[in-house]
Amino acid sequence: MLSAVEYCHALLRERLLPGDLALDATAGNGHDTHFLAQLIGPDGKVFGFDVQAAAIAATRRLLQRWGVPEGCYHLIEDSHAALAERLPEQAQGRLAAAVFNLGYLPGGDKSVITRPETTLPAVRAALEWLRPGGLLLVVLYPGHPGGAEEAQVLRDFASGLPSRQWQVTEYRTLNARQAPPAVLAIEKASPESGPDWEI
Amino acid sequence: MLSAVEYCHALLRERLLPGDLALDATAGNGHDTHFLAQLIGPDGKVFGFDVQAAAIAATRRLLQRWGVPEGCYHLIEDSHAALAERLPEQAQGRLAAAVFNLGYLPGGDKSVITRPETTLPAVRAALEWLRPGGLLLVVLYPGHPGGAEEAQVLRDFASGLPSRQWQVTEYRTLNARQAPPAVLAIEKASPESGPDWEI
Repeated sequence: MLSAVEYCHALLRERLLPGDLALDATAGNGHDTHFLAQLIGPDGKVFGFDVQAAAIAATRRLLQRWGVPEGCYHLIEDSHAALAERLPEQAQGRLAAAVFNLGYLPGGDKSVITRPETTLPAVRAALEWLRPGGLLLVVLYPGHPGGAEEAQVLRDFASGLPSRQWQVTEYRTLNARQAPPAVLAIEKASPESGPDWEI
Repeated sequence: MLSAVEYCHALLRERLLPGDLALDATAGNGHDTHFLAQLIGPDGKVFGFDVQAAAIAATRRLLQRWGVPEGCYHLIEDSHAALAERLPEQAQGRLAAAVFNLGYLPGGDKSVITRPETTLPAVRAALEWLRPGGLLLVVLYPGHPGGAEEAQVLRDFASGLPSRQWQVTEYRTLNARQAPPAVLAIEKASPESGPDWEI
């Protein structure tokens, strides 16, 4: 079976097209930013947020090492809670995908974790910025202190989204030894969603 | 996002190869039996169980209508709880996939439903009959009376499977208006599973 990250990448690979706009709300070490940049190509643009300067620097290094053209990404050292203020207005309602990879920065300070007080408003804002048919992915890590609570806050929020406008699915491992990550996928309805959209 | 049935079909399509053996433990109207027969081709064989004569007849008609050669399927009018007695011995440890689509027969008698007392032993037996790397899928329908309880019994059982031998994932819709189906996928470890198998 696919791991949580492999599952996210499979969904993004199916969905993103060259020239799309995408958001990595938790740039971290830059792996998802780079993955998104590869999928949307030189005519696309990925916006990468991280509140930690070390994460923005690591992401920039990774993108440069892989030769991603500078015009294809825009890195913002700020909380993703500020994304509605920091994203350029012309991206409003045009994001094809947004990715939130919660928890702490791998290899970084484990006391700096995402928290529902900022994650939830950021997810709400990112949903507004999605285009019709756009996809928001949240990788939930229930394993660290506070992680299970944050996962539950987001699961409850997503479960309450009206099914005419949103389809929400969860993919998770049930029998891992330790609390494994899970993936929430939230898709925005589009005119092509058709009559089978609402379950 | 994929519906539960589309998700199952995507997993089976990735996994099954021509010549494989497969089990449809709940043949119903035969759609999954036919789907499995298509994937494994003329050198494969699909075993189809259903406790209702009408379901076995409908499945046989569907396979004949699509021209599936008779040697490619073996339909058994019996409870899937009897599968260890009714499957040919040479299939033991050789099933590449097993599918359980729970609930009642669509278009049939809604009082005839699968029940955990028979479903759980049947799932246990089918897991034994899987080959290494084989995949068992259970589509859970929590919407009808008794459905939520059956779903929980199977989820609890699958959650307790040892992670060295089994990987168990769940895929479900979180925000449907009515209780939507969910999919449990249980994969048996194989020598190729590698060191990343156990999460």
